[in-house]
Amino acid sequence: MPNLKGFSLPQTPEGRSSLAPLPPWHYVATCLAVEFEVDTGIASSFLPEGLSLASSRAAVYFADWQAATDSGNELLDPVRSQYKEMILMLSASLDGEAVSYCPFIWVDQDISLMRGFTQGWPKQIGSVWITRAYDLPSKASPVIGPGGQFGATLAVKDRRFVEATVTLKEQVQILPSPGFASAVNARLFPDLCKSRHDKPLVHDLVQLRSRDVSFGNIWRGGASLTILDSPTSELQLLKPTSVGSGYHFSFALTVDDLVVRRRFV
Amino acid sequence: MPNLKGFSLPQTPEGRSSLAPLPPWHYVATCLAVEFEVDTGIASSFLPEGLSLASSRAAVYFADWQAATDSGNELLDPVRSQYKEMILMLSASLDGEAVSYCPFIWVDQDISLMRGFTQGWPKQIGSVWITRAYDLPSKASPVIGPGGQFGATLAVKDRRFVEATVTLKEQVQILPSPGFASAVNARLFPDLCKSRHDKPLVHDLVQLRSRDVSFGNIWRGGASLTILDSPTSELQLLKPTSVGSGYHFSFALTVDDLVVRRRFV
Amino acid sequence: MPNLKGFSLPQTPEGRSSLAPLPPWHYVATCLAVEFEVDTGIASSFLPEGLSLASSRAAVYFADWQAATDSGNELLDPVRSQYKEMILMLSASLDGEAVSYCPFIWVDQDISLMRGFTQGWPKQIGSVWITRAYDLPSKASPVIGPGGQFGATLAVKDRRFVEATVTLKEQVQILPSPGFASAVNARLFPDLCKSRHDKPLVHDLVQLRSRDVSFGNIWRGGASLTILDSPTSELQLLKPTSVGSGYHFSFALTVDDLVVRRRFV
Amino acid sequence: MPNLKGFSLPQTPEGRSSLAPLPPWHYVATCLAVEFEVDTGIASSFLPEGLSLASSRAAVYFADWQAATDSGNELLDPVRSQYKEMILMLSASLDGEAVSYCPFIWVDQDISLMRGFTQGWPKQIGSVWITRAYDLPSKASPVIGPGGQFGATLAVKDRRFVEATVTLKEQVQILPSPGFASAVNARLFPDLCKSRHDKPLVHDLVQLRSRDVSFGNIWRGGASLTILDSPTSELQLLKPTSVGSGYHFSFALTVDDLVVRRRFV
Repeated sequence: MPNLKGFSLPQTPEGRSSLAPLPPWHYVATCLAVEFEVDTGIASSFLPEGLSLASSRAAVYFADWQAATDSGNELLDPVRSQYKEMILMLSASLDGEAVSYCPFIWVDQDISLMRGFTQGWPKQIGSVWITRAYDLPSKASPVIGPGGQFGATLAVKDRRFVEATVTLKEQVQILPSPGFASAVNARLFPDLCKSRHDKPLVHDLVQLRSRDVSFGNIWRGGASLTILDSPTSELQLLKPTSVGSGYHFSFALTVDDLVVRRRFV
Repeated sequence: MPNLKGFSLPQTPEGRSSLAPLPPWHYVATCLAVEFEVDTGIASSFLPEGLSLASSRAAVYFADWQAATDSGNELLDPVRSQYKEMILMLSASLDGEAVSYCPFIWVDQDISLMRGFTQGWPKQIGSVWITRAYDLPSKASPVIGPGGQFGATLAVKDRRFVEATVTLKEQVQILPSPGFASAVNARLFPDLCKSRHDKPLVHDLVQLRSRDVSFGNIWRGGASLTILDSPTSELQLLKPTSVGSGYHFSFALTVDDLVVRRRFV
Repeated sequence: MPNLKGFSLPQTPEGRSSLAPLPPWHYVATCLAVEFEVDTGIASSFLPEGLSLASSRAAVYFADWQAATDSGNELLDPVRSQYKEMILMLSASLDGEAVSYCPFIWVDQDISLMRGFTQGWPKQIGSVWITRAYDLPSKASPVIGPGGQFGATLAVKDRRFVEATVTLKEQVQILPSPGFASAVNARLFPDLCKSRHDKPLVHDLVQLRSRDVSFGNIWRGGASLTILDSPTSELQLLKPTSVGSGYHFSFALTVDDLVVRRRFV
Repeated sequence: MPNLKGFSLPQTPEGRSSLAPLPPWHYVATCLAVEFEVDTGIASSFLPEGLSLASSRAAVYFADWQAATDSGNELLDPVRSQYKEMILMLSASLDGEAVSYCPFIWVDQDISLMRGFTQGWPKQIGSVWITRAYDLPSKASPVIGPGGQFGATLAVKDRRFVEATVTLKEQVQILPSPGFASAVNARLFPDLCKSRHDKPLVHDLVQLRSRDVSFGNIWRGGASLTILDSPTSELQLLKPTSVGSGYHFSFALTVDDLVVRRRFV
């Protein structure tokens, strides 16, 4: 029985140092999202074995997060609790059930990267910016209401990858689709042992579990979305064939569980 | 008559490239502030000629800004409109009038640095983080209301300089004091010509002018404030001798003017 | 058999997008190192089961890296090949064999974080700075020779953690000890499934394998080392009880293998 | 006589806090440069009054700097002494004398920004990366010699602006042209007072003065250079019409003076 403590590395005597703390993880975010269509042949090729493409519908989410453990200590040292993230979701089905799958996700803090890695989110570090609304009329702030215009961008390794805008029109009771709260991810831990580079130690389809989920007002409107070319990422293969609605909303949830749907190893 | 255009460097044929754009500059911010007392002898020594210390009262502001020009284009590319800043203010008097003076200010974007430089703000690049409130109940968000706890930090060149916390208690109709909206700054442009290193080209006391100022709800409560030691900054000389109230509020304003109160050269 | 390609997540149709590329990984670094002594009782408590403390000797390495795959394409887009890292090593023994163990390591790029994660390095994102020598006499550059002074710092989440200086004295044929090239790490992949938060999917002692290792000139001299207090890390428990020699050297190596020394699950 | 001390803002009682310290400023850099041709009509339009275009020849420099004052204290805290910069130079003439002019320059540290601002360099914050050579043979390092390949990039506000590569061929005794060490810059300090937005307080043509200049080995070879499109900068107007040689070299210099060549106000 190992003597060191901590959910993730680094494990230490007291367990206060692990990059991803012990769950539960409580989250809240303000989110800008854009629905779009992708080429189904291309999108299919991004799905891992076990998942099949459900439709051409995709969505991109830009989220301005704050996260905490039960202690809530991180909230008073916000460099440890805040981060921004861009999430791309495809529509998939698993055993006849409608699910979603994330081929790409970028985030700007390592704590979120590590938490995500244990959930199969394929997180990389990127730079995400999202227009904010303030509770005052100002030429420097959009309104959360009809005509309010928001923008969001993603850059990775000093190269802009994604630009989106949303112009709010009306309040709605539905969320963008595909969603990401119950995504099915491919959890993977590669093996560096020489003969095993293609034989991971862990390779599963896992499904996210959230609890205590709540939503604020959901606004919908028109949107634009551009995925820019880059020499090193395959993201550009998933360029929109058409762009649908944009959304602005807040939500909160708690995560401390995961369901294994399929084991590959 | 120079042919190039632009309010600040770089000036170019079209004038679209200058770091600080042509005013007016529209701003909106969410702000966490803490009032505190400083040693009056020390604080006096930080005031430029022409200003005298009015009291031991000082205040620190952590502001989460969004700024735009009349076009508002920056708002859709938020890396160009968002920034975070920490502002330290002392209580001063100028010709018998109560004013405030800023010995130190740190911001995380160059556009704000250059705009500020033209106003005499002694801006440097720093890393500022401020707890955010979300419009949803969540263990990952404080409430804007009684008991809501917020934190803010400043780090400069990889060293933490300031840590503050505020616990909200009640809504009030007053702002922290000293304020910063009509600060008197020392506008300075040094001369690198060899015999003139101590004879700046520009050295004035200038007073800020804002218009279209508005405020959201102002919450006040208890606070903590720590100014940490650092080998290279004189900020630590202004450590609190006691800590007063903390505040949380939003405000908006527009700037396109400045008043010269005294010329030193 | 999964259809997607890539050594790590994200796996994609072409496999060009995985954060950690397929090995081999070729590395070169300029390194500043400081040997020091730690409290043996405390250091013992940081070792995972299977390792025992060999002595009070520890070492910290600040490395200015460049890394590439066989294609070498990353070298022309240096944001993808360069990173800086701080590595702390303890002296350990495993089955009677002298090895080393890394309780803490910080790096400033995600690619290195993910490569390291597959090797059991407990990497987190930090900000590392290391004085450089230039091939010209200048008041802005130390010499690589007697009297040359170098500094290095680590900051994590806007807080300075470590400061070191080295003053070169003489060329030597030995490397700092404990070294890190054949470290024994604890490879760990936690399980988020609710009943298994303390039952990782992967938990091994693994030993690094390097090949094509070469060294440049090794300079040794006096050193200082400070590990600063921080409220959130246990690093400070490993403060020096005394500080030994400092080193400056370059080295190169290739990694594409790992040896499992013990399996905990 | 103002009581506060410091070459630039912030001025303080002891003068230890000013962003740009008192000169002299000692510099050393490793530099990757590419010569190229620009459209002469367009390049002419970027020159301030008083300068005329001398030829279509331009050059871009990517410099990996270390800088210090006489004390040299910054060298042991390298976050305060190191920075990377990209400099674009055009060929100009002033009163019949061959000079150079910089329409755009980006740097990644505020200290350099402020020092430059006093010299008329139109500095903005950008992200610069430059391939490094190590003193060891490695697949992760180019050689400084025939066949050695280096890359460099500039990104501004999360958008890549410039990409360059250089393949070394031969050692030469000449530097790239136009150079930047005796550039003529437009020193400018804008006035925010409402009626004076187009009437700067300082507006001069100034010429840089360096002393104690020395160079290391200069290598020349083939090069590529791409200036990418961006919606917000006029840099792209200066795209290469053809690309010339590339260079790799080190140099050192000291700066504490400036010559005023023309006063506009």
